[in-house]
Amino acid sequence: MLASILRHSRFTAATLKSRTAVSTSTIARGKCSVTEPSVSFAGFEDEPTQIEMKTAFCGPKSQAAFAAINERQDIRTAFTAADYTRSSGNYLVDADGNTMLDLFMQISSIALGYNHPTVRTALSSEEVLTHAANRPALGIAPPHDYGQLLKDAFDPVAPKGLSNVVVATSGSEANENAYKLACIHYMQNQRGGDFTDEDGSSSMLNQAPGSPELAILSFQRAFHGRTFGALSTTRSKSLHKVDIPAFDWPAARFPHLKYPLKDNQEHNKQEETKCLNQLEEIFKTNKMPIVGTIIEPVQGEGGDNHASPEFFKGVQAITKKYGALFIVDEVQTGVATTGTFWAHEAWNLDTSPDVVVFSKKMQTGGFYHKLETRPPQGYRIFNTWLGDPIRVVQARETNKYIFENGLVENAKVTGDYLLAGLQDYEKKYPNLICNSRAQGTFAAFDATSATLRDKLVGDLRNKGIMIGPCGNAAIRFRPSLTLLPKHVTQFFEKFEEVLEENKNL
Amino acid sequence: MLASILRHSRFTAATLKSRTAVSTSTIARGKCSVTEPSVSFAGFEDEPTQIEMKTAFCGPKSQAAFAAINERQDIRTAFTAADYTRSSGNYLVDADGNTMLDLFMQISSIALGYNHPTVRTALSSEEVLTHAANRPALGIAPPHDYGQLLKDAFDPVAPKGLSNVVVATSGSEANENAYKLACIHYMQNQRGGDFTDEDGSSSMLNQAPGSPELAILSFQRAFHGRTFGALSTTRSKSLHKVDIPAFDWPAARFPHLKYPLKDNQEHNKQEETKCLNQLEEIFKTNKMPIVGTIIEPVQGEGGDNHASPEFFKGVQAITKKYGALFIVDEVQTGVATTGTFWAHEAWNLDTSPDVVVFSKKMQTGGFYHKLETRPPQGYRIFNTWLGDPIRVVQARETNKYIFENGLVENAKVTGDYLLAGLQDYEKKYPNLICNSRAQGTFAAFDATSATLRDKLVGDLRNKGIMIGPCGNAAIRFRPSLTLLPKHVTQFFEKFEEVLEENKNL
Repeated sequence: MLASILRHSRFTAATLKSRTAVSTSTIARGKCSVTEPSVSFAGFEDEPTQIEMKTAFCGPKSQAAFAAINERQDIRTAFTAADYTRSSGNYLVDADGNTMLDLFMQISSIALGYNHPTVRTALSSEEVLTHAANRPALGIAPPHDYGQLLKDAFDPVAPKGLSNVVVATSGSEANENAYKLACIHYMQNQRGGDFTDEDGSSSMLNQAPGSPELAILSFQRAFHGRTFGALSTTRSKSLHKVDIPAFDWPAARFPHLKYPLKDNQEHNKQEETKCLNQLEEIFKTNKMPIVGTIIEPVQGEGGDNHASPEFFKGVQAITKKYGALFIVDEVQTGVATTGTFWAHEAWNLDTSPDVVVFSKKMQTGGFYHKLETRPPQGYRIFNTWLGDPIRVVQARETNKYIFENGLVENAKVTGDYLLAGLQDYEKKYPNLICNSRAQGTFAAFDATSATLRDKLVGDLRNKGIMIGPCGNAAIRFRPSLTLLPKHVTQFFEKFEEVLEENKNL
Repeated sequence: MLASILRHSRFTAATLKSRTAVSTSTIARGKCSVTEPSVSFAGFEDEPTQIEMKTAFCGPKSQAAFAAINERQDIRTAFTAADYTRSSGNYLVDADGNTMLDLFMQISSIALGYNHPTVRTALSSEEVLTHAANRPALGIAPPHDYGQLLKDAFDPVAPKGLSNVVVATSGSEANENAYKLACIHYMQNQRGGDFTDEDGSSSMLNQAPGSPELAILSFQRAFHGRTFGALSTTRSKSLHKVDIPAFDWPAARFPHLKYPLKDNQEHNKQEETKCLNQLEEIFKTNKMPIVGTIIEPVQGEGGDNHASPEFFKGVQAITKKYGALFIVDEVQTGVATTGTFWAHEAWNLDTSPDVVVFSKKMQTGGFYHKLETRPPQGYRIFNTWLGDPIRVVQARETNKYIFENGLVENAKVTGDYLLAGLQDYEKKYPNLICNSRAQGTFAAFDATSATLRDKLVGDLRNKGIMIGPCGNAAIRFRPSLTLLPKHVTQFFEKFEEVLEENKNL
């Protein structure tokens, strides 16, 4: 996979081999006997060496910070108030001085850890200051060297055949623009020429034919954002959707697989076949044309739901058969965390997806697409800012660091260690946890009930492990790419304490 | 108006009086005899003193820059490639070394001019670097002092009674969140309690009752953004809307007034009454409940269309009568440019709007609202980033500078001078231009045809005046807040040349 990225990359394989080796150590713990592997990445310099809790989580100063914020903005959703000046690497220091191992990293959006010197240096540059102080309307007055920035930031990690990008300020905006691209592409193909006066005038009234009834298909338990178009494809939680008008778009069944995948191949294959058959049935019978299918490589908000490469190939084939665009939402899975730069690389598709959406660890929202899906006129996928150039610079520097330090491979090795340990623990505490699953460090397990899940998340945070819930009963890991096996070992130590304390529940 | 802002402000009236006076000078030009007024703001230090064109607009280096960008991103919409390192104050320097007076300022989004020292200093601070290098998920792990930042950035310019904010990354995201707020508020009032299991489960299928049919009302020729929800309320141009599915939401007539307003009061009053009657008829008869009305104080994209304070009061009254939220979109009009900090202050409303949306010159997207419209649960107006804290810092520093330097008043005086000159020119070139109109420096005039408009915009750019089209035949000014009468005089000199050259068309 890495090789396939490097074809498009200015970073050479030689660069990857120059990494410093880190010595292996075997950690013996009471219940878990998985061996901590070695990795070639030396890790984050100067980060704390250990977790240190000074108060129960969260402490009085965090609470006071929430109260101050809450006077002006709803902050009921917060679980910590951070001191980012003191946070470093994989450790978040909170307002109460607690030093916590952060395995959640701002909902998966900090790529290299807190206060990474590479990021700080990039953001302190005159280049970034000029972009920041003169934020351009990139579609009308781009910086004269913006072509070079686009090339350096996006070419090295471009999925094969996807030469074009649309930059956005967020994942939701990127997805919405991808949906617009799919609608325009479909209607253009239908029409074969420019839109008519009637198309124009009816669109101004939000009526067909100018505002056609077209659908974006998504999957049950999917998450694609929260603006009206994106939210119409999100199916993870009713709390996100209730009371908000939605387009009458279809949702296909996403496979409910049994874990571990290798022990449940027959069941899982049947389940995936059932889902693909249902998907094709929807394409055949849906009351409005489906112009795009959007899917996550792992459903990150909806419970860390995995599927096989064959399933995704099947979704692509059906989507293509019916003339829709195959849109892969890599907002959460993208940027090395799954052990390939893009999670969809692991599918070994014959042809790339039509659209690959990114945000979070990419530092900027946006998507890749093929030149042939560019709309026939300008201004059709447009807005004032079209992203933020400082975040494009940050993407360039972050991605360069990832390749120069072998962080794709690091995520794979570190994630395999994490998964092996989780699987070991679930054998020893089957009444508490199950269904461990991971691609790289994009890992999760289930608690045996939603109530227990919430308790385990709380107990782990009290011990200095920042971790996140998702779906009904899942607990997910969304660490930085500088997470090393030694951090996972730290997690195991605290995890074992929590499991022990809860084992008689 | 300023007094009403200062009630909420930490900047005192004494600060405003400490400004340095600038001497008045009378400029005699061939056709325009309006006197250049004095203003107390000393202006931008070290900006160029004059326009200097080295190539036709745009030159070969801009064209080459477009070609390089176009390999990866659609850039057919661009009209200049800028050298932001050399741009300063009100002057944009382009790739070809042309120094142009920029009266368009990145579609109205540069508040203080290029490379303003206050902005550069703020963005070079350790505070901003920490925010930038550790971009938080502000809803779950805000910086411990984020309450203070919200207070300092938003309180000084808060519309009366609107104590709460929701921060966003763009104007579209802000509008969409405002629509969600209106939907949730309406349904909560209807229900009087928590949503039911049926609401929850039907919402996951995008079906009523959980996904109800609710409408946001907007006005013909309005612009509120380009994501699916926002675009359903945008009515400015079919090119933005064609082929994109839209909600079946109503558009009311926005007044077509005659200018100058003071000479056409009878006609305009009748027109506004007609519009208000039609608005009420829509509220009475619309097939789905209208939960919010969104309106711009001046329709900026749709042609710089003005209306009277009485009209806006009428819209507010009807909206309130039918239980909907009154949402004022100040994305383009906000932040001092109209001669009041918010354009809606000039309406002297008895009670504030329910929601005031901002972006562009505010540097961050977002909106103000009342505490009582906060949703009953957290997570309902939420996303990963909830804005970008570096842009909130920039808002704080920009707004502070605006008050300390009297830029609200500066926009009024400078804008009055601009309008007087435009009115003088339209008397002398009635075959070319008409309908000059302005609130502060938020100014525009019409060409007598769309073709002529495009020619005048091109001719002005060739003479080093960066200006923008809007609506069918309008040319609009969206300068920075550091624009002074002396810059307007520079514009008049070039404008007169262009008018002379075109007078026999």
